[in-house]
Amino acid sequence: MNRYWSPGVGNLTPYSPGEQPAGEHVVKLNTNESPFGPSPLALSAIQEAATDSLRLYPDPNAAALKEVLARYHGVSPDEIFVGNGSDEVLALAFLALLKHDAPLLFPDVTYSFYRVYCKLYGIGLREIPLSDSMEINTKDYDQHCGGIIFPNPNAPTGIGLPLVAVEDLVAAHPHAVVVVDEAYIDFGGESAIPLIHRYSNLLVIRTFSKSRSLAGLRIGFAVGHVGLIEALNCVKNSFNAYPLDRVAIAAAIASYNDEKYFQTNRIAIMTTRDALVQKLSAMGFEVLPSIANFVFMRHPAVEAPLLAKPLREMSIFVRHFAQPRINQYLRVTVGTATECARLVDALSDMVGKQKSAFE
Amino acid sequence: MNRYWSPGVGNLTPYSPGEQPAGEHVVKLNTNESPFGPSPLALSAIQEAATDSLRLYPDPNAAALKEVLARYHGVSPDEIFVGNGSDEVLALAFLALLKHDAPLLFPDVTYSFYRVYCKLYGIGLREIPLSDSMEINTKDYDQHCGGIIFPNPNAPTGIGLPLVAVEDLVAAHPHAVVVVDEAYIDFGGESAIPLIHRYSNLLVIRTFSKSRSLAGLRIGFAVGHVGLIEALNCVKNSFNAYPLDRVAIAAAIASYNDEKYFQTNRIAIMTTRDALVQKLSAMGFEVLPSIANFVFMRHPAVEAPLLAKPLREMSIFVRHFAQPRINQYLRVTVGTATECARLVDALSDMVGKQKSAFE
Repeated sequence: MNRYWSPGVGNLTPYSPGEQPAGEHVVKLNTNESPFGPSPLALSAIQEAATDSLRLYPDPNAAALKEVLARYHGVSPDEIFVGNGSDEVLALAFLALLKHDAPLLFPDVTYSFYRVYCKLYGIGLREIPLSDSMEINTKDYDQHCGGIIFPNPNAPTGIGLPLVAVEDLVAAHPHAVVVVDEAYIDFGGESAIPLIHRYSNLLVIRTFSKSRSLAGLRIGFAVGHVGLIEALNCVKNSFNAYPLDRVAIAAAIASYNDEKYFQTNRIAIMTTRDALVQKLSAMGFEVLPSIANFVFMRHPAVEAPLLAKPLREMSIFVRHFAQPRINQYLRVTVGTATECARLVDALSDMVGKQKSAFE
Repeated sequence: MNRYWSPGVGNLTPYSPGEQPAGEHVVKLNTNESPFGPSPLALSAIQEAATDSLRLYPDPNAAALKEVLARYHGVSPDEIFVGNGSDEVLALAFLALLKHDAPLLFPDVTYSFYRVYCKLYGIGLREIPLSDSMEINTKDYDQHCGGIIFPNPNAPTGIGLPLVAVEDLVAAHPHAVVVVDEAYIDFGGESAIPLIHRYSNLLVIRTFSKSRSLAGLRIGFAVGHVGLIEALNCVKNSFNAYPLDRVAIAAAIASYNDEKYFQTNRIAIMTTRDALVQKLSAMGFEVLPSIANFVFMRHPAVEAPLLAKPLREMSIFVRHFAQPRINQYLRVTVGTATECARLVDALSDMVGKQKSAFE
């Protein structure tokens, strides 16, 4: 740092995103991207958006996109907020809705950004431990709080919460906003979006980066009661002058217009996941029951870093978190069947070798 | 507001961006967009970026773009920071470099967002009045401060500050960061970028929304000493997970690869501007000496709102700011020659009518 920095900037801890290795032979299973490209309709829409109209600012309200999302999800456009990726939507939700005197509650093992946003905005927090089986127990949230946030399914565990349990939680906290981060909901979970008309304290957040295969653009949205959406708009419009761009809006709309492609790919990913879990289990891995596009696993006989490092040397990238409770786990994105086979082959050799060293 | 909002959110004042009217017959001279489309190379690059690779996250560092910008502007890639439009870059600069005990100085008539950012981040400010001729007098900034920011040329006046004056200001404040917002520099100003190697307290901010005709995407950047750039990276990477997207990066690079198109258009805009100023002056308008892609003007005999409203009814959109000192001015973007002719014809009728009412 130098003398020109604002006070406090030197104390910030930059987030470490998953690596973005490039190369033809890389098997990239570390950042939960889709193994499939975006819908061909989305790619065409991007090409068609490449016109002179890009000289003009985007619609700051992204009205055309909100209409498509509203129709698809059975809500009204004013119950939708869109942003540059769900991370931006989350950041604005923390600022607009989750900063209260009472602490924000979230699982001790969850998306690492929740902690970052709390620190950044000075929001008090209480981490609620997952159960021994790494599950969210909604009863543990039965305490005074300023808000609750969790991903469903949770990350990096991949374990989902049934919709009835989500509803119980929302109903039990009428005084607080409950944010359900549904980044991975399309791979087997039940969305809470239909509940927003019954609960004015429920906000559901979605992304185009996973099941819509558009991580390369940055598109996310929130669905909730107009009162909650209004708060997000208020914060965004008071300082955030960087709306969703024209190309992203066009691609997002087209993605929703290709339901068949969406369904085919998400089902393919679930099928590959289930086959992958079977093979990993057969090798002795303990794999948490995932309804996401990744699996979270550990091997009772082999330390996680001793697997991640040699995998990496073979250009197979998976994610290891050096954090309490989960430092023996690896998070592995569900890739194509071919990519998963390469991973299984590599692990099979390693687990064999390591196991023999123990015998 | 409702009971779920974080305290303070209800007090925020949303920014009012210029309207985005649509329609074939609209003459849109209210938000300083380029009348020309982006470079054909940029449009091709967008089309070529529409591939399966969009399933992957962007390079969070935008290294390829930084290299192109560095080469063009004669600096090193680590002296460059990129963001989603210069508004995002500005927001991060306010947070990372301009929040100090001493107040931030900026002109009383300037880009309205500076005030917004100060309020948002709790930064003390002191507005320094422009001279009677609406010029920045650098001597007026000769006071204790935590930083200085101004656009060059200034907006909405369009008046530029010579490079020697910028350098004097930077040299006179070695203890404070001086941010020069060069959104409109390509229309006749002298960039301060070459000074960054001599002054470690100078940050220059640029946008692709004006002279690069890419307002529809959101791309901006800052150039400065590595110590300043590091502060921006530190803040961005600690919470901001929404990097420049893949399509925007591709378009930005291609735009810089089409120097001829860039030069042709910016010169055309300057030529049209000078012709427009002549005609407006001949009609009795007082037009400030603009080196931007807009002109700022008033008519001694006609109230500004009495011009803006009928223009609007004729689908000619210009910008009026209901603010002290400038509420008699209109800001008019330099459009195509045809658009400017339509404006001149319309104004000519009005000024004629209004004037005769005074006779």
